[in-house]
Amino acid sequence: MRNYGSKLPNELAGAGSAEPEGIRKEASLGMRERRCELEAVSLGETRPRLVSINPINLSLHHVLGRVISMATNPLTPTEFTQIQTIIKQSQTDPTHNLTFQYVGLDDPDKEAVLSWHSSNQTTQLPPRRAFVITRINKQTHETIVDLSTSSVISSRVYTGTGYPLFTFEEQTAANLLPFKYAPFLESIRKRKLKLEEVVCSTYSVGWFGEERKKEKRELKLLCFYLDGTVSLYVRPIEGITVVVDLDEMKITKYSDRFIVPVPKVDGVEYQSSKQKPPFGPSVHAVTVAQPKGPGFKIDGHTIRWANWNFHLGFDVRAGPIISLASIYDVEKDEFRRVLYRGYVSEMFVPYMDPTEEWYYRTFFDSGEFGFGLSAVALEPMTDCPANAVFMDGYVAGQDGKPIQYPNLFCVFEKYAGDIMWRHTELAIPGQVIREVRPEVTLVVRMVSTVGNYDYIVDWEFKQSGSIKVGIGLTGVLEVKGASYTHTDQIKEEAYGTLLADYTLGIYHDHFLTYHLDLDVDGEQNSFVKTKLETKKITDHSSLRKSYWTVVKETAKTESDAKIKLGLKPAEFVVVNPNKKTSVGNNVGYRLIPGSITGPLLSDDDYPQIRAAFTNYNIMVTPYNKSEKWVGGVYADRSRGDDTLAAWSARNRNIENKDIVLWYTMGFHHVPCQEDFPVMPTLSGGFELRPTNFFSSNPVLKTRIPNPVHWPNCTST
Amino acid sequence: MRNYGSKLPNELAGAGSAEPEGIRKEASLGMRERRCELEAVSLGETRPRLVSINPINLSLHHVLGRVISMATNPLTPTEFTQIQTIIKQSQTDPTHNLTFQYVGLDDPDKEAVLSWHSSNQTTQLPPRRAFVITRINKQTHETIVDLSTSSVISSRVYTGTGYPLFTFEEQTAANLLPFKYAPFLESIRKRKLKLEEVVCSTYSVGWFGEERKKEKRELKLLCFYLDGTVSLYVRPIEGITVVVDLDEMKITKYSDRFIVPVPKVDGVEYQSSKQKPPFGPSVHAVTVAQPKGPGFKIDGHTIRWANWNFHLGFDVRAGPIISLASIYDVEKDEFRRVLYRGYVSEMFVPYMDPTEEWYYRTFFDSGEFGFGLSAVALEPMTDCPANAVFMDGYVAGQDGKPIQYPNLFCVFEKYAGDIMWRHTELAIPGQVIREVRPEVTLVVRMVSTVGNYDYIVDWEFKQSGSIKVGIGLTGVLEVKGASYTHTDQIKEEAYGTLLADYTLGIYHDHFLTYHLDLDVDGEQNSFVKTKLETKKITDHSSLRKSYWTVVKETAKTESDAKIKLGLKPAEFVVVNPNKKTSVGNNVGYRLIPGSITGPLLSDDDYPQIRAAFTNYNIMVTPYNKSEKWVGGVYADRSRGDDTLAAWSARNRNIENKDIVLWYTMGFHHVPCQEDFPVMPTLSGGFELRPTNFFSSNPVLKTRIPNPVHWPNCTST
Repeated sequence: MRNYGSKLPNELAGAGSAEPEGIRKEASLGMRERRCELEAVSLGETRPRLVSINPINLSLHHVLGRVISMATNPLTPTEFTQIQTIIKQSQTDPTHNLTFQYVGLDDPDKEAVLSWHSSNQTTQLPPRRAFVITRINKQTHETIVDLSTSSVISSRVYTGTGYPLFTFEEQTAANLLPFKYAPFLESIRKRKLKLEEVVCSTYSVGWFGEERKKEKRELKLLCFYLDGTVSLYVRPIEGITVVVDLDEMKITKYSDRFIVPVPKVDGVEYQSSKQKPPFGPSVHAVTVAQPKGPGFKIDGHTIRWANWNFHLGFDVRAGPIISLASIYDVEKDEFRRVLYRGYVSEMFVPYMDPTEEWYYRTFFDSGEFGFGLSAVALEPMTDCPANAVFMDGYVAGQDGKPIQYPNLFCVFEKYAGDIMWRHTELAIPGQVIREVRPEVTLVVRMVSTVGNYDYIVDWEFKQSGSIKVGIGLTGVLEVKGASYTHTDQIKEEAYGTLLADYTLGIYHDHFLTYHLDLDVDGEQNSFVKTKLETKKITDHSSLRKSYWTVVKETAKTESDAKIKLGLKPAEFVVVNPNKKTSVGNNVGYRLIPGSITGPLLSDDDYPQIRAAFTNYNIMVTPYNKSEKWVGGVYADRSRGDDTLAAWSARNRNIENKDIVLWYTMGFHHVPCQEDFPVMPTLSGGFELRPTNFFSSNPVLKTRIPNPVHWPNCTST
Repeated sequence: MRNYGSKLPNELAGAGSAEPEGIRKEASLGMRERRCELEAVSLGETRPRLVSINPINLSLHHVLGRVISMATNPLTPTEFTQIQTIIKQSQTDPTHNLTFQYVGLDDPDKEAVLSWHSSNQTTQLPPRRAFVITRINKQTHETIVDLSTSSVISSRVYTGTGYPLFTFEEQTAANLLPFKYAPFLESIRKRKLKLEEVVCSTYSVGWFGEERKKEKRELKLLCFYLDGTVSLYVRPIEGITVVVDLDEMKITKYSDRFIVPVPKVDGVEYQSSKQKPPFGPSVHAVTVAQPKGPGFKIDGHTIRWANWNFHLGFDVRAGPIISLASIYDVEKDEFRRVLYRGYVSEMFVPYMDPTEEWYYRTFFDSGEFGFGLSAVALEPMTDCPANAVFMDGYVAGQDGKPIQYPNLFCVFEKYAGDIMWRHTELAIPGQVIREVRPEVTLVVRMVSTVGNYDYIVDWEFKQSGSIKVGIGLTGVLEVKGASYTHTDQIKEEAYGTLLADYTLGIYHDHFLTYHLDLDVDGEQNSFVKTKLETKKITDHSSLRKSYWTVVKETAKTESDAKIKLGLKPAEFVVVNPNKKTSVGNNVGYRLIPGSITGPLLSDDDYPQIRAAFTNYNIMVTPYNKSEKWVGGVYADRSRGDDTLAAWSARNRNIENKDIVLWYTMGFHHVPCQEDFPVMPTLSGGFELRPTNFFSSNPVLKTRIPNPVHWPNCTST
């Protein structure tokens, strides 16, 4: 049995001993790291065999004296159980069915967190509270629970529009309903399909102008056909619409309008074990070696690496939450604040088929299905490289009990062969100077599989001060069954690409809106548009007729900071107007966008009203604890009244304030045959890059990694 | 002494024996690979010590029977010598000074190359010819030399506008002129600088409407001050303009208009050995291990890896030239053509300071200075990872003799921890299905250091069929000396960012125009704009009010294919209109642009007239052997009469023709303090991605790399 590089830093791993008491303590940190012991791993196998997983009791309290940044730690299993008990005890009528739709940390006041953090965690920890959304007797309840006093701080029935996240359990229950529903059984029989090979899946229904009084909490079901494959999403059983009332947990509407062939089973399987030769392409294995082990330290939820220090939280809705990211400035000999908090606030995925069976597919993957709830276990050696360390997470089940998410995150040092900086100087007679620094970065990864699609969420920290945020789209397309086997047969709008016989890949978008609460050297920041403007020279003062220069414009109010990218050349910088470098530039971080994609739905279309937060690629708001979810707290069946677009309509002052930058990145996806039956990753992302934040290149004095001899590797 | 992973594939390395005869043979291939033997490499040292380099005699003829793709191989040392002899012999008056400004392969006819290639290299090799530009007696001569017959095919005096590339030798000679020029000595004395610490550098002068009859072949010189550092480019000696007549090799104009301080030496040094503590940030070493060695094969200039097969050429002007790239289609059991040729055709770098000393800085880095000529030796372990294999190249010196460029290219398999595709399926009761394929790609890298800037040029091949082209900008900014030490002192336009005392980083652009001669399944291709258009629904046929769909428009003529990115959502696909997938989609490759940057100079400004090829991000032309350099064959002092913009004004038919896609990628660079004194790499790039080229995901049946056990690594 060997250790595959997920070795912890010595000072952390040194504490290892697996006493039950230790495990409880560790569990109380809400997350645990573990070393994945892999025996006789063969990369030639379908996947590495996970022979045994020995949780290491880190006993971090004992190793490092105290655990830092606990203020923003996600809820622990113990806390979930405590919350469950408190909520149940507070229930007025215990005969009513109670479901936990959302349980998350109630954000402590930013001021309190910062004051506690800046005191080096010596002052009183801000109170730990949970925000809980339950459904009781067809009503949505919002409860704030204080964990130190085990009491309910506030409780109210929510009567506004929209509904909370779906639980896995209610989706599973809904998916089973058709199998006891006679009209559905008849539909399957009519299609000559085997019922035992049918699997159903849940779809949020959106909002299309329905009156509130007629509205119910509903899901639609779509069913798929296995029969020889696990690649269910590419074998839809079209024509059938099943509507489930979630509060009643019964089918309330049903229609079967037409029959088209279920796409063929040939060529849809993606499991390695089921493939037939010829295989390929094939490459020689490339693995990562870190003879001295990973260079980062995980202390509870705080990760320290190179010059970075940040907190990695987790929320069932957002997935990973990066907070309190600061970077060590060698010159100033201090950690300087960069990002108070960053996370995916919402993901909007509208499909472009307006027909009866498809029009409603306009998903809010975070607010409806939970980007964190949909996270999947990462596989060592394939989802993350050999030097990765894995961390678990916890969510509350529908009954309020904690559920462990193993291998939720991986953290690893990445070396892609890239160059951090270099220069060869040949201009000095008799000298050849060459200085090269290879680029090693730190990546935090989570994968969220929202049904068919797999989203790879990366937060990458660079020694040069950049934070690169990456998103990878892979998994299975949402396809539509159709009667076509050749494009020549398509005589009217098909709303997609014919990918295979009877299979249309429907056009769609993915919009991700990131909450980026930059605190550049403190909370008081401004948003500056560094506009690049052409200047014409007409006075013959130069032989040139033009040049461009920079015109800086500080956004005063929210409307000044609404930006559709691509229209005018500019840089977008969050600066601290109160801090200057010694030569007088405002310290800042700029957003380098990776995509300028904007929405193509009409403004008055219901999905776009709900997703009006995508109308601009960039928006800036003053920090407001309640403005967390750009699609609204209640995204399911939302009506656009609680979106970023609505908040910012107040046009608040944002100059020299604690501001939040919202960046919306999008993909218009015209599927192609290569995306079938499983799609090669399509990647996007953006960068937050220091801009006059440091007084000079912060990696100038980086030395090539510590002296190591090349590992003596043998292939066995 | 150990081998550091640059091991060659066994079948190639097996032939190793270093007989002199072998070396000559190998040298006749024009390039050689070598294994870098590094002894006791310590990554903590400034750079790995290159103890011995033992060239391996590949004797490829003997190993593989014959060397393929020789038709497009770059000129070999033997051929350079042969050309030198032929040109000298043809010189009518041997007393005239003869300089070789450009010596490169005269492209064989595409038809002949393809016919020879498709015959599996069994037919007659197309004739090898060289295109040579010389200067004799103040005149530019163009000569085509046939190498098989050792004869001049054609020769003419070029009387058009513009001049050829500068040679290194004439630049070096020019740089020494000021040291014997009394007014310059006086200028240095006046500034109280030590002459022995002064270094001069050459700058092309551009064209600003001067009449032809008054025009000379000139360079301007700028001088810099070392005195305690090698970081010369950040210590300009401002105020002095030196003009050199290159044909006379003498200073013809001189002015010294003002004195500003030379920027301080503090903080400008970038050499590791000269840094003082505190150092940092520091990380643990991450290295790459390939227990079975690299999985690619280099056969002459042909590289085979996974499903790819391509040729890597080299040109003194373009740098790397990728040609004859084809990909193996498992399903069709054949190699299919993708890219006939791809390379950087020109790079335009205009600075935005119109003052007397700076206005002319509007460089054409390829056409004036040679992107290949400026290539620098790559350093093992830092410029390229441990598993890289290095290749040398050759250029002709000013005297026509071959000069070896060691470690010109590196080729390596890259694994950055990324995921090629994945899916976790939890929807099937009782099953958890997880399939993940890690992404391993092949990278070909060259670094070109054009004076101060270092450009990292990457061509990356993905198993999924994508070609990703990357460009990294690092090195040293071009700064201007100024009297400012604080931004408060700047009362008028400074044309740049104050980076440090007396140091302005001048605003500028980098535009790279790529020649992309895609041959998607053959030469006859079309360019299709896949426009995404919003459709409104007003007939209440749907609860939706809108959707977007795809409207495909095939460009008929060149004007249909002139595209400024960012204005309208669209995909851009090169298709083969004569080849369809079985379901009827046209096979194609699409361009996924990485930058939508366009020029900001006014159209009538001289630099923009010369660089009119940057006016659109995308242009498409019919293939034309003579249309190779978008800025003109003679870029120095060009006047815009031989640019891509001029060629395409003919508005030729491009539908179902052999077409070339030209993509212009740009960076507007507003320098920031982090870029000083050496800038962290700023990256850009684009992707050519198969789009209905394959009938399904071409990496569906890829298995996780061959069975290997994790290497038994020990740190010594």
